[in-house]
Amino acid sequence: MRETPVLDLEPGALGLDGALTLKLELFQHTGSFKARGAFSVLLAAEVPAAGVVAASGGNFALAVAHAAAELGHPAAIFVPESSPPAKLERLRRGGAEVVVAGAFYDDALAAARERAAASGALELHAFDDPLVVAGQGTCGRELDRRRAGLDTLVVAVGGGGLCGGIAAWYGNEARIVATEPRRCPTLARALEAGAPIEVEVGGHAADSLGARRIGEHPWAALSRWVDDAVLVTDDAIRDAQRRLWAELRIAAEPGGAAALAALLSGAYVPGRDERVGVLICGGNFDPGSLA
Amino acid sequence: MRETPVLDLEPGALGLDGALTLKLELFQHTGSFKARGAFSVLLAAEVPAAGVVAASGGNFALAVAHAAAELGHPAAIFVPESSPPAKLERLRRGGAEVVVAGAFYDDALAAARERAAASGALELHAFDDPLVVAGQGTCGRELDRRRAGLDTLVVAVGGGGLCGGIAAWYGNEARIVATEPRRCPTLARALEAGAPIEVEVGGHAADSLGARRIGEHPWAALSRWVDDAVLVTDDAIRDAQRRLWAELRIAAEPGGAAALAALLSGAYVPGRDERVGVLICGGNFDPGSLA
Repeated sequence: MRETPVLDLEPGALGLDGALTLKLELFQHTGSFKARGAFSVLLAAEVPAAGVVAASGGNFALAVAHAAAELGHPAAIFVPESSPPAKLERLRRGGAEVVVAGAFYDDALAAARERAAASGALELHAFDDPLVVAGQGTCGRELDRRRAGLDTLVVAVGGGGLCGGIAAWYGNEARIVATEPRRCPTLARALEAGAPIEVEVGGHAADSLGARRIGEHPWAALSRWVDDAVLVTDDAIRDAQRRLWAELRIAAEPGGAAALAALLSGAYVPGRDERVGVLICGGNFDPGSLA
Repeated sequence: MRETPVLDLEPGALGLDGALTLKLELFQHTGSFKARGAFSVLLAAEVPAAGVVAASGGNFALAVAHAAAELGHPAAIFVPESSPPAKLERLRRGGAEVVVAGAFYDDALAAARERAAASGALELHAFDDPLVVAGQGTCGRELDRRRAGLDTLVVAVGGGGLCGGIAAWYGNEARIVATEPRRCPTLARALEAGAPIEVEVGGHAADSLGARRIGEHPWAALSRWVDDAVLVTDDAIRDAQRRLWAELRIAAEPGGAAALAALLSGAYVPGRDERVGVLICGGNFDPGSLA
């Protein structure tokens, strides 16, 4: 892994009263934190000769393809027909077998499972695996080592792998503010229900935060250690992307800017002198959309 | 100033054999290192009530406007008619008086000097000032503190302020590789001639590296401490921008990617185990051009 850089912002930056520490995890291998979880699984697991399979057209697919190639395992990535050709090309360049299977994610998932059952390949799940959660948590450990004593971590939630891992690292030592798009309220609904439930998802950040159900393993950490679960609108996410670019020259994808959106929109308002860390967790998008 | 982050890249990253340390100075206030020099001058000088004037439509203008506003001085920025409206708007939002004066940079410069003579305002030069060179050099000091023992620094040269400041900081303690676009060979020609001379400039990075003559103050440092002065093509600069984005999700302007282009194009080839630092020094451009 790369140790991704940390950027300390002075009070007043981005129009916020307090100081802020950004963890720039979008500069990780394959452009998001997902590489941490992929390596965590592949280094701990007994990988069969048939290699690994995963269903994803997004950041997790890039991470699995990269980690498998680095470690010398064959990788088959099952994607729905809706996946952009540029992403498929990037997966192929990374050395993965890319299988276009069905119209929707669920079709790709079913085909991936069929392949795993037939070939004996190891199926990787994007977030519902303790090794994946632990891997994503290393991002929190790194930040904690560089900036000890942060009071609060603001983290985006899709399936919960990153936020669950970071919550598990900090435990009760810091406040965990989980942030979701209003149109992907997977954790918010789970907290209301007292357990993960399936929700409808959509909107601007659904490509990376659009898991329809919190994973059981992330839930074990999130339900214990998340202090605030806040929701942000798609417009707030777009505004956070625009301001990251206009004021800092950081080009973050929608899901990568969602945690910052919680602060910029006032969904979470830190106290005076609260030391806040924010995860900028991905950059896989078309930067032309910032213009 | 912000302490800008450092990113360590593993051998193999960006297709290079060796490890590399990037200093991400594009995340500085106003999107480039120029804010360092602007604050250096304004904090050291006796600024008259009439404030400051500068001629620039680019990164230096943004830096002067920002530093003057932060320190409570009026600032008048003289720009040629060719300046993009978006840049003028950004200057005005920063609180500066923006004066469009003449078709070319030299016209804007003449108008700025006239204003300074008439009003008593302090005229700032973008690079030919020992305080500006010293200010830009703080970027080298910061990097040296975070990553002691770098063997080589690769730095882009326009008027020479940044590279001169960094050369003055490291002196004989590191190899200084100055990088210019082939179409802006201002330092290369000065080294051939033994003194700064006027050259024709143009091409992809001319907006930030297009000074026509090395400043006398930067020259005092560059002529003493630069070990290699290399040239890169516009295509090599575009390729460096593309790869910074495709592989690292860093969106750098042409001048900001020029130093990396020296390594990617083979204009400078480090030895085995040479520890190389590269300045990524600006990000003020349209990121849509990366698509």
